[in-house]
Amino acid sequence: MADVEEGTTFAPKFDSSGLIPVVVTSARTGEVLMLAHMNEEALACTLKTGEAYYWSRSRGHLWRKGEESGNTMRVVEMRTDCDQDALWLKVEMGGAEACCHTGRRSCFYRAVPIGKGTVAGLSLTFVDTKRLFEPEEVYGHAHAAKGTLKTQN
Amino acid sequence: MADVEEGTTFAPKFDSSGLIPVVVTSARTGEVLMLAHMNEEALACTLKTGEAYYWSRSRGHLWRKGEESGNTMRVVEMRTDCDQDALWLKVEMGGAEACCHTGRRSCFYRAVPIGKGTVAGLSLTFVDTKRLFEPEEVYGHAHAAKGTLKTQN
Repeated sequence: MADVEEGTTFAPKFDSSGLIPVVVTSARTGEVLMLAHMNEEALACTLKTGEAYYWSRSRGHLWRKGEESGNTMRVVEMRTDCDQDALWLKVEMGGAEACCHTGRRSCFYRAVPIGKGTVAGLSLTFVDTKRLFEPEEVYGHAHAAKGTLKTQN
Repeated sequence: MADVEEGTTFAPKFDSSGLIPVVVTSARTGEVLMLAHMNEEALACTLKTGEAYYWSRSRGHLWRKGEESGNTMRVVEMRTDCDQDALWLKVEMGGAEACCHTGRRSCFYRAVPIGKGTVAGLSLTFVDTKRLFEPEEVYGHAHAAKGTLKTQN
């Protein structure tokens, strides 16, 4: 434990599904773009190429971010946390700089009100409505209409 | 699906363990402080009080961040992501403003080198060595020595 937290050996801890969660922020704006996951292969590809690869839980395969949409992610810095069960990537985005499959910059485009009640009945507020690309144009209308685009990029 | 992504109804998706991951950033500095988890009760307490509560996976109970160390977290903003299976909190910290149980500001205090090889044999670089509090003084020497402090705050 001491070495995991205070040592210099990289020892990423994957969960029971073989995944590690990855917080992704924009190196330019500092905002959180998404929370994604890597398996060992995605991590290895990212470390080797400097381009962000993830494991798509919804589609069940490895993907290079932006391979379809052009919204790639060049890794400026990677960090691990105290117990090495999470990663943080600071990235420079390519293309339209839209991380989310809905066309928005960040996946976190809605705010949850605080102090207004418990979960049931809370109304979200859109804090970012700007689409930097049109999902239908990038992924095709059928996919977009079915809402099958989670992590499709 | 359309409403989950494009609607205003808050419908947080908890995983098979009843947890949702929470990215926590500093409202002051913008940096990522930690990746934590909430269960339904922790989320309800956070929404009601505006103070961050989490579920400790290592200790198996609800905790108000900073209840022991004074490093509390007042929630400035909460956001949910496109498919509502992750949250992002921007917080103002109390006390020494040290999020990590090791005494550091952020849990992400070590960088992973890119382009230097695969996982095996990579050496981490400490990017933040400053301890804002001494874990032994806050939690007691026995706990600190055993390394049982994960998410203990």
